[in-house]
Amino acid sequence: MQREVERIRKDIKRLRIQGARNVAKAAMAAMGVIARKSKAESREELVNEFLVAADELASARPTEPMLRNALRALFAHMRRSKGDVVELRKLVEKEELEYFRRMKRDEERIAEYGGRELSGSSVILTHCHSSSVVSILERANELSKGMEVICTETRPRFQGLITAKELSRAGLKVTLIVDSAVSHFMKDVDAVVVGADAITAKGDLINKIGTCGIAMIAHEHGVGMYSAAETFKFDPLTLWGGIERIEERSPEEITNPKKLKGVEVRNPAFDVTPARYLTAYITEMGVITPQSLLNVVMREGIEKLY
Amino acid sequence: MQREVERIRKDIKRLRIQGARNVAKAAMAAMGVIARKSKAESREELVNEFLVAADELASARPTEPMLRNALRALFAHMRRSKGDVVELRKLVEKEELEYFRRMKRDEERIAEYGGRELSGSSVILTHCHSSSVVSILERANELSKGMEVICTETRPRFQGLITAKELSRAGLKVTLIVDSAVSHFMKDVDAVVVGADAITAKGDLINKIGTCGIAMIAHEHGVGMYSAAETFKFDPLTLWGGIERIEERSPEEITNPKKLKGVEVRNPAFDVTPARYLTAYITEMGVITPQSLLNVVMREGIEKLY
Amino acid sequence: MQREVERIRKDIKRLRIQGARNVAKAAMAAMGVIARKSKAESREELVNEFLVAADELASARPTEPMLRNALRALFAHMRRSKGDVVELRKLVEKEELEYFRRMKRDEERIAEYGGRELSGSSVILTHCHSSSVVSILERANELSKGMEVICTETRPRFQGLITAKELSRAGLKVTLIVDSAVSHFMKDVDAVVVGADAITAKGDLINKIGTCGIAMIAHEHGVGMYSAAETFKFDPLTLWGGIERIEERSPEEITNPKKLKGVEVRNPAFDVTPARYLTAYITEMGVITPQSLLNVVMREGIEKLY
Amino acid sequence: MQREVERIRKDIKRLRIQGARNVAKAAMAAMGVIARKSKAESREELVNEFLVAADELASARPTEPMLRNALRALFAHMRRSKGDVVELRKLVEKEELEYFRRMKRDEERIAEYGGRELSGSSVILTHCHSSSVVSILERANELSKGMEVICTETRPRFQGLITAKELSRAGLKVTLIVDSAVSHFMKDVDAVVVGADAITAKGDLINKIGTCGIAMIAHEHGVGMYSAAETFKFDPLTLWGGIERIEERSPEEITNPKKLKGVEVRNPAFDVTPARYLTAYITEMGVITPQSLLNVVMREGIEKLY
Amino acid sequence: MQREVERIRKDIKRLRIQGARNVAKAAMAAMGVIARKSKAESREELVNEFLVAADELASARPTEPMLRNALRALFAHMRRSKGDVVELRKLVEKEELEYFRRMKRDEERIAEYGGRELSGSSVILTHCHSSSVVSILERANELSKGMEVICTETRPRFQGLITAKELSRAGLKVTLIVDSAVSHFMKDVDAVVVGADAITAKGDLINKIGTCGIAMIAHEHGVGMYSAAETFKFDPLTLWGGIERIEERSPEEITNPKKLKGVEVRNPAFDVTPARYLTAYITEMGVITPQSLLNVVMREGIEKLY
Amino acid sequence: MQREVERIRKDIKRLRIQGARNVAKAAMAAMGVIARKSKAESREELVNEFLVAADELASARPTEPMLRNALRALFAHMRRSKGDVVELRKLVEKEELEYFRRMKRDEERIAEYGGRELSGSSVILTHCHSSSVVSILERANELSKGMEVICTETRPRFQGLITAKELSRAGLKVTLIVDSAVSHFMKDVDAVVVGADAITAKGDLINKIGTCGIAMIAHEHGVGMYSAAETFKFDPLTLWGGIERIEERSPEEITNPKKLKGVEVRNPAFDVTPARYLTAYITEMGVITPQSLLNVVMREGIEKLY
Repeated sequence: MQREVERIRKDIKRLRIQGARNVAKAAMAAMGVIARKSKAESREELVNEFLVAADELASARPTEPMLRNALRALFAHMRRSKGDVVELRKLVEKEELEYFRRMKRDEERIAEYGGRELSGSSVILTHCHSSSVVSILERANELSKGMEVICTETRPRFQGLITAKELSRAGLKVTLIVDSAVSHFMKDVDAVVVGADAITAKGDLINKIGTCGIAMIAHEHGVGMYSAAETFKFDPLTLWGGIERIEERSPEEITNPKKLKGVEVRNPAFDVTPARYLTAYITEMGVITPQSLLNVVMREGIEKLY
Repeated sequence: MQREVERIRKDIKRLRIQGARNVAKAAMAAMGVIARKSKAESREELVNEFLVAADELASARPTEPMLRNALRALFAHMRRSKGDVVELRKLVEKEELEYFRRMKRDEERIAEYGGRELSGSSVILTHCHSSSVVSILERANELSKGMEVICTETRPRFQGLITAKELSRAGLKVTLIVDSAVSHFMKDVDAVVVGADAITAKGDLINKIGTCGIAMIAHEHGVGMYSAAETFKFDPLTLWGGIERIEERSPEEITNPKKLKGVEVRNPAFDVTPARYLTAYITEMGVITPQSLLNVVMREGIEKLY
Repeated sequence: MQREVERIRKDIKRLRIQGARNVAKAAMAAMGVIARKSKAESREELVNEFLVAADELASARPTEPMLRNALRALFAHMRRSKGDVVELRKLVEKEELEYFRRMKRDEERIAEYGGRELSGSSVILTHCHSSSVVSILERANELSKGMEVICTETRPRFQGLITAKELSRAGLKVTLIVDSAVSHFMKDVDAVVVGADAITAKGDLINKIGTCGIAMIAHEHGVGMYSAAETFKFDPLTLWGGIERIEERSPEEITNPKKLKGVEVRNPAFDVTPARYLTAYITEMGVITPQSLLNVVMREGIEKLY
Repeated sequence: MQREVERIRKDIKRLRIQGARNVAKAAMAAMGVIARKSKAESREELVNEFLVAADELASARPTEPMLRNALRALFAHMRRSKGDVVELRKLVEKEELEYFRRMKRDEERIAEYGGRELSGSSVILTHCHSSSVVSILERANELSKGMEVICTETRPRFQGLITAKELSRAGLKVTLIVDSAVSHFMKDVDAVVVGADAITAKGDLINKIGTCGIAMIAHEHGVGMYSAAETFKFDPLTLWGGIERIEERSPEEITNPKKLKGVEVRNPAFDVTPARYLTAYITEMGVITPQSLLNVVMREGIEKLY
Repeated sequence: MQREVERIRKDIKRLRIQGARNVAKAAMAAMGVIARKSKAESREELVNEFLVAADELASARPTEPMLRNALRALFAHMRRSKGDVVELRKLVEKEELEYFRRMKRDEERIAEYGGRELSGSSVILTHCHSSSVVSILERANELSKGMEVICTETRPRFQGLITAKELSRAGLKVTLIVDSAVSHFMKDVDAVVVGADAITAKGDLINKIGTCGIAMIAHEHGVGMYSAAETFKFDPLTLWGGIERIEERSPEEITNPKKLKGVEVRNPAFDVTPARYLTAYITEMGVITPQSLLNVVMREGIEKLY
Repeated sequence: MQREVERIRKDIKRLRIQGARNVAKAAMAAMGVIARKSKAESREELVNEFLVAADELASARPTEPMLRNALRALFAHMRRSKGDVVELRKLVEKEELEYFRRMKRDEERIAEYGGRELSGSSVILTHCHSSSVVSILERANELSKGMEVICTETRPRFQGLITAKELSRAGLKVTLIVDSAVSHFMKDVDAVVVGADAITAKGDLINKIGTCGIAMIAHEHGVGMYSAAETFKFDPLTLWGGIERIEERSPEEITNPKKLKGVEVRNPAFDVTPARYLTAYITEMGVITPQSLLNVVMREGIEKLY
């Protein structure tokens, strides 16, 4: 059992599980595993097991508010319930299912709203891999045939190749380019859409390294810049001045550092795109400007987050 | 003999010889080879051999005005001379040497002027590999110790690793990043300096793919954007509306296209940075704004070019 | 009776009734006509008549959320009432009056708030004809004498001439110019104010063709760009990615197409001004930035809209 | 007694009491003085005394919404209470204390949130003197040692020297410059933070003359521009088109006008920084974009203000 | 004879002759008429006749440097010649022919250089009517089939309809729009090209009213903005601070002013586009940035102008 | 004699002589003093005296290319002359007079060209004190009555008060403001004009601290930014990457540093305004864009400089 949770944690840490949503789902699945397989005999013992696991999962990746929001919501539910160890197991299993159901529903809404929003574009550029973005582009292509998508390869781990394959299989016309070719192709692009790892109180987007540069280039061409994101990716800590930590990953993802004696290899996984370079977030609540998101989330989503 | 010229042509075409200056030098060397080894017995025969070789060399790489300018200047010299086959051989050998000498002198001046210009900066970003840029950075570091340089890896062919190694060996503090991390690090950068493949009459810079995006990001941060370039890289054809052709190289440089069935892989080698995103060209004549270059070249360099 | 409704529909379609507010009022008046004159004998029959008429009215002009919002609110009232055919007639007549009353009150508030906001400006530019804008400018001129207004003629239908006449009659100093003279006069302008046909969830403004260009020119001069709009012009559908359809009207409004064989004449009636080019909306709730509007409307106006 | 209130009024008017918070506190203290020392024998008489004093205090400085908001909130409390003259005295004394307590709590929160937000910066520029800003910078320096602050001298009254002294005493590295040297030093600055005198419904900042120019210069360099402000500084009147009056102070603060015969000396105390030049407000509710502030205040703060 | 010159002057004044080039040609033709038909019997008498006519022609339209440059060059030739009345007649007739020949050659070069420069664009927008622009677009369409052109109608005199007809006849795909629809269509445009009435020493473009607004809109979309212009349109007076006078034409071109009592109708014929909104001038000397033009003209064209 | 030269040097150093032109004139006057009063008996001796004095004068102020250019030109004349000590004295006296004459002529031309260029503006802002600017504004006011000028006080040495007095005496309407009030008044300004201390090869302007910030604020408002400058202020060294040294003056000019223990007071006298924030230089050769200046100076002025 512990092994299963540990395996999930490692898969998250080593990027075998990728994308904010998959990571959050995996963490919820890990909680479900504990609910089903723990040998705890008292509520206290069980809650403690959950807490230890949650802590380990949350620290596997520093830039993952969706993961932390999911766990935080789960513990809020636990606190409200006064049940014994058996009821607690059931509650967590139910919440795990509920979380998956809501994720699915949110995903469908994002695909639908984003598909409509982008159906007027004929060439769209995307960066890295995001299943929300893939769903949006497939839906947009249903609504308005003949859509072309330009995918960056997305160094250092080439996730753009996954996007290219999935979209090509879905029947879209796909072009693959190196990351630095974005400005060369931007003049033909009608809109850019990327995923999201986290959203701050200022409406800034934390996403795969390279996103901010693409947003600036889109801005210079007057091209719309969208991010597809569940409002669950909003990081409440940033409201109180908490700076989103940018994870730096191993230099070995980029090159063999031994061959570059004396050279420091830096590998930040994300960057921050200021709100003013973004047109809108495509969320399960609708297509919303970065400056509105805080208020929308505070009104409708505040309970979700704590 | 023909084989030697052919080998040079292939090395140029296959990017084994890289950088506008090295390519131009190689072409001049090829002309020297012919001068020394041709079996031509008349001036006509010899000139013809030169022309055939020049044509092949010029077409090996479409975006190389420095190569074309060098050959054009050589033929102008030949035309002015009325000598016989022996004298022509000598003339070409002399011009080959003269060209190398001028290249060297221009290189030294660019290193000196650029070194002074950038000596006030403490963190400089560069892209791809340019020997002029390396010389400038070494000189700047002599003038103002403790300089740090951020090098992009420069996909698809990773020339940035060469830059990183050379600068590190020369004692500079070097950081290597992926191309799309430029905007993440730009806030700490004082100036950007890149090389040049060609310069148009409008002052636009043609350089390694990715340069234009970097220039836009620098512009958003109010960071100076320099290109180190001999005025020989000015392409006179662009004055009459000739659009600089952007070479597209093999998709295989990026990925194995067979694994991406149905996906088009595009690999443009260069992009165009509009003059308004550039602070200045660092040339052998001085540090000059893009808008001044046409006039400076027309005044001083016009004979050089035809 | 039907003829009266049909006449209203035609007047809307043929632009004899213009301006989002007048169009919405006319549609409500048409519903009143039905309430008063329908021969329907059952609630079902009467509701059906309303629905048929509403459908025809709504489709007379595609870019009119205010019209659709008014009808939608009316049907919400009908649904909540369980009364018979007689009570339903009364309810619709009452709602018609109530709608007119609220329109009037909103209009007065917009005039007041806008008048105050613009009272510090001495030269104001406007485009097309909007009764809200005329009221604002009259009020601003009361608060701060000697105001000058520059009116564009507003091709193709010259509604700017109506604005010019009304403002001149009201005692303001008025200048009329062709649409393309806007940038020439902008350096003397302190603020721009236009009406609104629709507002999207992103805060973008849909208004008479030419508005977006004026907004960009104002932006280049650092001149404030306002739109006077009841919050009823917010189009809720745009929250879910619905793209506002831009009506294209007959080419004959522009020229006689027969004289231009082989030339396509395009006549879009509106354009979309992105939120970032707008300073604020002047609404009956106050002077609000485009990015705030969604939240203000969602909090206070949501019932109004459905 | 009256003399004590009168003295406070004069100290406010003559800038002996400075900073929006100190002014508001002084006004509340004046109300406490009346509560304690008035000889009024009826509720009516006492209320009247409060009103007269409030009126005089409010008009001592035209650009002080925080002062007006504090008084407005106090009167709202009085209205809700139905008590007699004795109870009213107690209520006002209690509210005075409560106001001080809340100010203190808000100040601590602003220091904490702002300190965290800016802890990632190493060089920060500030203008004029704001106790909130001083607290933020001290907190930021605790979180991230070695912070440098550049202070403008802030003509005409040199309040920047107070800031410089306080920060230096608190152990920060401080540099003092003339106001017009801001653009010269901006290239080394990571963030700017200033106080606030008032905030409008559009999110515009009213603050010490010079703030808008600094914001534009920061914008050109892509440097974050923050204002530290209690939400109590939001001016509700601006929602309805009320233009914030900019106080013009005596020319003698600048120079001896007699020596400049025929020259008009203008001395506006504040300027207006449009929302689009601001990164965020640091408030007691969190770090919030200018466009969100209206909605946040309307949701949580509306009772406070009326 | 005088009547013939007078007729030309009137045709110029009343816009029956339009376009800077046609106006200059007509003025040269008028000089030829005098040369052929004058009854002058001495050189002095003839020169005087030329001067009187030149003065009248030059004052017929205030914004026409090309006209003034042509006459100025002609008088320079006369001054250099010392011949008698007969020889002077011959000289003027020769210069008339020579001027026409050069105009033709310049026109062909502009068509060629501009055609090449724009051959990479697929949708081009133009404003008003310029024969140079029509030639460029025809040439570009030969080089790169399937070009689409968007023409504005160009109020108040609808010259855009002439452009639309000519291009349509020449086989291009043409769309006609009202002037204020430019921003709506700009997102699909690859380049803008217009004519020129005059160019200042700062590189600013004086052209048909509306040009500056189009340039600003193009700038916001990162779209290239070209002006086709003989260097003869450079106005040397602007070097010494002479401000180009903007002709205001009759209000009756816009509307019947009697119907708009109390409204001032303003009808400036041209506006000024600052150099920074222009990509390049397409001249007979090549494609040149606005900032380079002064230097190019001073080097090569100075004799032409005086 | 030496004392007279020494006094001039001190007056330059201590800013008793101010403005690039006055400094250059004073240096030339010092050379004249030597020519007249030196007791040197041989050419060598005299030249040596000139060299020693020139060296001392040139180092009195680091940012003064006009001073260095004047001396450099003088020595070029000396070198060309082969005369003996008597002839050399005469030559220097003649060159001194000639320099004053040319300065006067250049000044008149700048006043005339600038006066015309700005005669269309009604409100002009200036910074610091420049006699060229004063002359231009007087001339502009002659051409177009009723001109208003806004003068900054120009900390730390309040030279703006001199400008205010001179313009007021000359009959212009003058307003004095603190430096940081520039952005508050910019919305009413039609043009900004300042002097120049030096101009770089990139067209950047070195001028009184604060100029760059004013230029950025003007840029945000689309207001023209002019610098009045003899081409003699062009610094040829900057062409080869020499960075213009920015003089830092004594902190005591700002405040008494003893009262600010632990605070560093920085007092740079100049800043650098990048060419892209400048509309044009008003020179004795005409009104020229920053990007053209290098070419204009190289063509016409090169002998002047060496």
